[in-house]
Amino acid sequence: MYELPDSELASIDAWWRAANYLTVGQIYLRDNPLLRRPLTPEQIKPRLLGHWGTSPGLSFIYAHVSRIIRDTGQSTIYLTGPGHGGPALVAAGWLEGTYTEVFPDVTRDEAGMRRLFRQFSSPGGIPSHVSVTTPGSIHEGGELGYVLVHAFGSVFDNPDLLTIAVVGDGEAETGPLEGSWKGISFLNPVRDGAVLPILHLNGAKIASPTVLGRKSDAEVRSLLEGHGYRVVEVSGSDLPGMHRRFAAALAECYASIREIQREARDRGTPGERPHWPMIILRTPKGWTGPAVVDGEQVEGTWRSHQVPLSGVRENADHLAQLESWLRSYRPDELFDRTGTPIAEILAANPTGQLRMSASPHANGGLLTRDLDLPDLRRFAVTDDEFGTAIESTRRLGDLLAELYRRNPDRFRLFCPDEVNSNRLGSVFDVSDRMFAERVEPGDTKISADGRVMEVLSEHNCHGWLESYTLTGRHGLFASYEAFAMVSASQTVQHGKWLEEANHLPWRAKVPSLNILLTSTCWRNDHNGFSHQGPGLIQNVITHRGDVSRVYLPPDANSLLHVADHCFRSRSCVNLIVIDKQPQQQWLTFDEAADQVERGAAIWPWAGNDGGTADPDVVLACAGDVVTMETIAATEILNERMPQLTVRVVNVIDLMALPRRRDHPHGLTDTYFRELFTDHVDVVFSFHGFPGAIHQLVHGRPDADRFHVRGFIEQGSTTTPFDMTVRNRASRFHLVMDAINNARRTPPGASELLAWCEERIADHERYVVEELEDLPEIRDWSWTRKG
Amino acid sequence: MYELPDSELASIDAWWRAANYLTVGQIYLRDNPLLRRPLTPEQIKPRLLGHWGTSPGLSFIYAHVSRIIRDTGQSTIYLTGPGHGGPALVAAGWLEGTYTEVFPDVTRDEAGMRRLFRQFSSPGGIPSHVSVTTPGSIHEGGELGYVLVHAFGSVFDNPDLLTIAVVGDGEAETGPLEGSWKGISFLNPVRDGAVLPILHLNGAKIASPTVLGRKSDAEVRSLLEGHGYRVVEVSGSDLPGMHRRFAAALAECYASIREIQREARDRGTPGERPHWPMIILRTPKGWTGPAVVDGEQVEGTWRSHQVPLSGVRENADHLAQLESWLRSYRPDELFDRTGTPIAEILAANPTGQLRMSASPHANGGLLTRDLDLPDLRRFAVTDDEFGTAIESTRRLGDLLAELYRRNPDRFRLFCPDEVNSNRLGSVFDVSDRMFAERVEPGDTKISADGRVMEVLSEHNCHGWLESYTLTGRHGLFASYEAFAMVSASQTVQHGKWLEEANHLPWRAKVPSLNILLTSTCWRNDHNGFSHQGPGLIQNVITHRGDVSRVYLPPDANSLLHVADHCFRSRSCVNLIVIDKQPQQQWLTFDEAADQVERGAAIWPWAGNDGGTADPDVVLACAGDVVTMETIAATEILNERMPQLTVRVVNVIDLMALPRRRDHPHGLTDTYFRELFTDHVDVVFSFHGFPGAIHQLVHGRPDADRFHVRGFIEQGSTTTPFDMTVRNRASRFHLVMDAINNARRTPPGASELLAWCEERIADHERYVVEELEDLPEIRDWSWTRKG
Repeated sequence: MYELPDSELASIDAWWRAANYLTVGQIYLRDNPLLRRPLTPEQIKPRLLGHWGTSPGLSFIYAHVSRIIRDTGQSTIYLTGPGHGGPALVAAGWLEGTYTEVFPDVTRDEAGMRRLFRQFSSPGGIPSHVSVTTPGSIHEGGELGYVLVHAFGSVFDNPDLLTIAVVGDGEAETGPLEGSWKGISFLNPVRDGAVLPILHLNGAKIASPTVLGRKSDAEVRSLLEGHGYRVVEVSGSDLPGMHRRFAAALAECYASIREIQREARDRGTPGERPHWPMIILRTPKGWTGPAVVDGEQVEGTWRSHQVPLSGVRENADHLAQLESWLRSYRPDELFDRTGTPIAEILAANPTGQLRMSASPHANGGLLTRDLDLPDLRRFAVTDDEFGTAIESTRRLGDLLAELYRRNPDRFRLFCPDEVNSNRLGSVFDVSDRMFAERVEPGDTKISADGRVMEVLSEHNCHGWLESYTLTGRHGLFASYEAFAMVSASQTVQHGKWLEEANHLPWRAKVPSLNILLTSTCWRNDHNGFSHQGPGLIQNVITHRGDVSRVYLPPDANSLLHVADHCFRSRSCVNLIVIDKQPQQQWLTFDEAADQVERGAAIWPWAGNDGGTADPDVVLACAGDVVTMETIAATEILNERMPQLTVRVVNVIDLMALPRRRDHPHGLTDTYFRELFTDHVDVVFSFHGFPGAIHQLVHGRPDADRFHVRGFIEQGSTTTPFDMTVRNRASRFHLVMDAINNARRTPPGASELLAWCEERIADHERYVVEELEDLPEIRDWSWTRKG
Repeated sequence: MYELPDSELASIDAWWRAANYLTVGQIYLRDNPLLRRPLTPEQIKPRLLGHWGTSPGLSFIYAHVSRIIRDTGQSTIYLTGPGHGGPALVAAGWLEGTYTEVFPDVTRDEAGMRRLFRQFSSPGGIPSHVSVTTPGSIHEGGELGYVLVHAFGSVFDNPDLLTIAVVGDGEAETGPLEGSWKGISFLNPVRDGAVLPILHLNGAKIASPTVLGRKSDAEVRSLLEGHGYRVVEVSGSDLPGMHRRFAAALAECYASIREIQREARDRGTPGERPHWPMIILRTPKGWTGPAVVDGEQVEGTWRSHQVPLSGVRENADHLAQLESWLRSYRPDELFDRTGTPIAEILAANPTGQLRMSASPHANGGLLTRDLDLPDLRRFAVTDDEFGTAIESTRRLGDLLAELYRRNPDRFRLFCPDEVNSNRLGSVFDVSDRMFAERVEPGDTKISADGRVMEVLSEHNCHGWLESYTLTGRHGLFASYEAFAMVSASQTVQHGKWLEEANHLPWRAKVPSLNILLTSTCWRNDHNGFSHQGPGLIQNVITHRGDVSRVYLPPDANSLLHVADHCFRSRSCVNLIVIDKQPQQQWLTFDEAADQVERGAAIWPWAGNDGGTADPDVVLACAGDVVTMETIAATEILNERMPQLTVRVVNVIDLMALPRRRDHPHGLTDTYFRELFTDHVDVVFSFHGFPGAIHQLVHGRPDADRFHVRGFIEQGSTTTPFDMTVRNRASRFHLVMDAINNARRTPPGASELLAWCEERIADHERYVVEELEDLPEIRDWSWTRKG
């Protein structure tokens, strides 16, 4: 068993006391940071905010991990599940010097310490939880539950990285966290790095005890062993005993990790799933803080969760108690006259990029290498293939397979058990599914060497990809459209991370988060209503313009160009929506390239306006199925009412619609007018909820003239064409809309309207009868002509 | 150990064979349902859809649970986690006669069986998974992961109910499912019913093995024992051995449940958390289906997940194999000449409401009793209290406490550890937090007798409330606004459930799903950007009009009336958004009642248009903080530019904005015009993303005249007032908007615009300097006058 030398112990303890001192200072002090004078109420912040309870434990772990790093040179990052313990991590960064490197105003001396305290949880300052502004972090501590998914994502294809993941006992109650212990079932000790989870049980959350904090030790152990871990436990509050025991536990775990890796790497194959070590650390909540306040027990209870002494400015007893609490860390022994940490404390820091707050893995843009992308043309739909229905996502699958081939160290696909279902199965020609549990004879395309990530958990898939990209690698999350809502909050929070990072010059840009939504609402023939929901678009379009991207390629060639663009982009959330079923192909390879670059284009071959500036009506579309309906509607109009001049506009980049001042992809006023005029009515057929278009075109000339058809939450187990009828977005509805909104009404309008009504009624009869007759699904396709 | 009598065994086996036969029939047959003739390709459906793999296991369990019910009279419902096994549950309902009771066309004879087969997963028919259309279900089987949350929610305050929850090994990989085993930590054996989880491990999901399916038995047992269960295991495929062993396991579990309940109920107190029983059932996937197809193993592998024989229409071998598979169930012995199940099968059904497909608990509207609601006036803000800032949600908390008092058997509050934080803590005067794990001295307001549900999991809270209401009881889910996105997919799916149920006359209306969003984006002073997100509104407004409701009460009195309305409503998703911090109070009790009923109203005391039909500009608002800014802006205008006639309109019911044809709450054209005119520009200050208003007013007269300010994703750790400035929604921005969009520009406009610019610049300087000075938070309030 490892024995911590006394000199190390003294240095670690001093570092820890300094971190605790700085934590309390951030919560309370606006002045007198070194307590060189007696504490007065005026030196206390007007509003006391922050979370003390979890912080001393976080700093305790941090100090000890730093020792391992110093001893071994192990590249390590630290993810803080109990993210509201922000001041602890800020303190660590300041002690390590990193904070001053990224925020030069916050010097590592008395003036900087004063600034450090004042900025915390103050207007214009930093949030109270670990966030984008915290150097060394790739994990936002606001929304709980993702620390383990982020930890595992960070170490995939990162064989030399160790990620420490502190799991709070509050967040341990969340579904996503409970579902993410299984990361080790997808971890390859040869090619991947390691995660060391530390379940920090201090027994309470904001206002009450936690489930894991109050289960018997045996049950908690049983639970984690059931997840496959070797459990090491450390409990107590005695000092220096806790230092010694935790140092030993950490040394044991680290040795065990290295041994697992060494064995596997010597052997060259992952072998049976290892029993990776993890630590359960039980310490009092608010450890080293005030034990009793106003006669009530605070240390060790939920009362220490936030600000243990709340009346410091008004209550002299509280003030005195705060002062003695601060002085209990013996600040005079920790900082020299200038306020700089003493040499013994600095000696506890690792050096350079080994400092966890300075790891380039936590600022992954620094490590990002571009993807080696192939020439797209080899996957393209050729002119010969037009006229046949093609599964567009299958072409994307071929591209993804090539990405796997060319980028074996920095590209992965993440998907909840739907790679084949989504027609992306070509990747299995290059890589198996990753699976570290038992593989049996007869299993196909699955092994512990695989790098295609399939787990039936959107949370795991999404979160793994998030940190895979935040550590500088590339990937794609592919999901059934409706169930992308499961991880919508992750999409939103990751977008916020990127938005915030864009304001921090020291944060290097990272690969984008690419999300493919397929199995869409229009084509869920047998699954029905619960599988019909294009809602995620609603959430992504509200992100800031520098982050939000929504693409609706109508066919394979445009999908390829969109994907290529997304894989080259940085620090965006790219949402790509396209169905997986065989579908019409519209654009040649070059046309698609051009339109993806422009965002939207007139399809001259579809309309009959011959380039006039003044068609009678514009039919616009965004999305695959609705594009087909638009083309079909145009053809009906061209045939049956050729006098009506119709222009067809297809939109691939949804964010081309807003004004450029509202979004950087917004079309220029001139090009927008070239496409949509500024006065002709537009019948817009949209893949998602119509309101999305209404809000995006707001502010464009005469936005009221946009009449939008889309998914209006009418769904069922039914044919694709019937879906368009139920949602009043079929070709016949579009024809009627075109006639009703055209600038002039050509002769024959009422006949054509009546004909459309008949077609719809005919269809509705057909559906009712279908149950009796069950004929073949009616042909509903339409093909680009000429 | 229970021994299944041979007569019972024969009857159960016959029932099971019938269910399997009906399942295969649904997937394959369009005709010849009883196989009275040789099977021909024409009798096969044109498109083969559905999921065989899980179905025989589901029917097996169902048959055995029915025996327990027959023997004991136990009121029981059956929730199907592997919901894509829909045909199995439909078959069960048909065998029990319930299907015919709710769908009279689907008779329990040959004609009905033919219809049963043809409607399955066909246009105009029913979906392939367990859904709203399945009698006996309160659980949509599309989006996986919620079967245990639904199970636990159904039994809270339902002491006589047993809920069987079958967990599939695919969905067992999801985060929400893993996080929901802990339901027993919140279950009271005295007052609540019981859940019997059955983890059905058949080893594979769509295309690959599952984590739990390939862990060692010891690890899986350890995991579930760690969750606190007593684990009973049954494995195999041998018959009749499996019948005997499963019957014994079920009998043992049922006895154990009853014993736990009896002990606790005799004692009168819940006592230590029981080790509730659960079953791990291991059977082959696709059990009793084709073992080998085209030389590949199918039974027991992922290949049996959906349609094991896919080429039946074209491939004579497949057709023959299907026929022999169907005949292996010996249909001639199962159904009489008319196609009715034989008496031995019918004898396996429980009777009446004890049939699981006919349980009124699974059609909870039948059991719903109105809440006993108090007179709201006692919680109201009185005239005397105007002028003081009041925490509005605290008044709601007082109302909730009274609901707990009056409805001890049918009302609960569900909240992720934030009841006190959200100022709803009055409920603890009536009931503790529920917590079945160890309670220690010093814990406050927490016990195994409590009925306030706090668990740090939005998924659990939301899901528990869903099924609590679907079984006919009432409740509220209260969440931090930003983190309501965690359970957004549940909100969406529950909305879909209600929308679908509204079309089924036999589904009785249930209490609404009430969601309170507080700690809103405008008032997250220290938490910062990750806590600032009003995104859920975006998702709720896309629901159908018969379900979606969004309320933005600006103060306590309107909150009380909104809550009262929501608690009386049925089958809606009610989203209520209001902050928890002290805030201005605007409306008297009666004014609030009137406005909540109307949805929106002119605030004549705020504007200066004196009732003219033609003000120069309308200032509208929806949401608490933005209302205050609007009132402040109006006051600035009234003071500094009294010539400008300004009308103030406040919107509480957001769905009053769409046209009535788009939403039943939509204001009539006349009233809309009375409020907003049809030509005057409207400066609309909105709590959420501005696009929501743009899409809601689309189609209203000249919708382009609505200029919306709202949350534009600008956030940080900062003061509330600074939030309004950053989002360009402050009083000064509103004044400028009003001037710039008014019908006429009164003299002094440029001066007032310049003054506003100065105020904003002044504020921005102040924020930059604040870090240095840390003054008190600036007063930013405004009070209703006169």
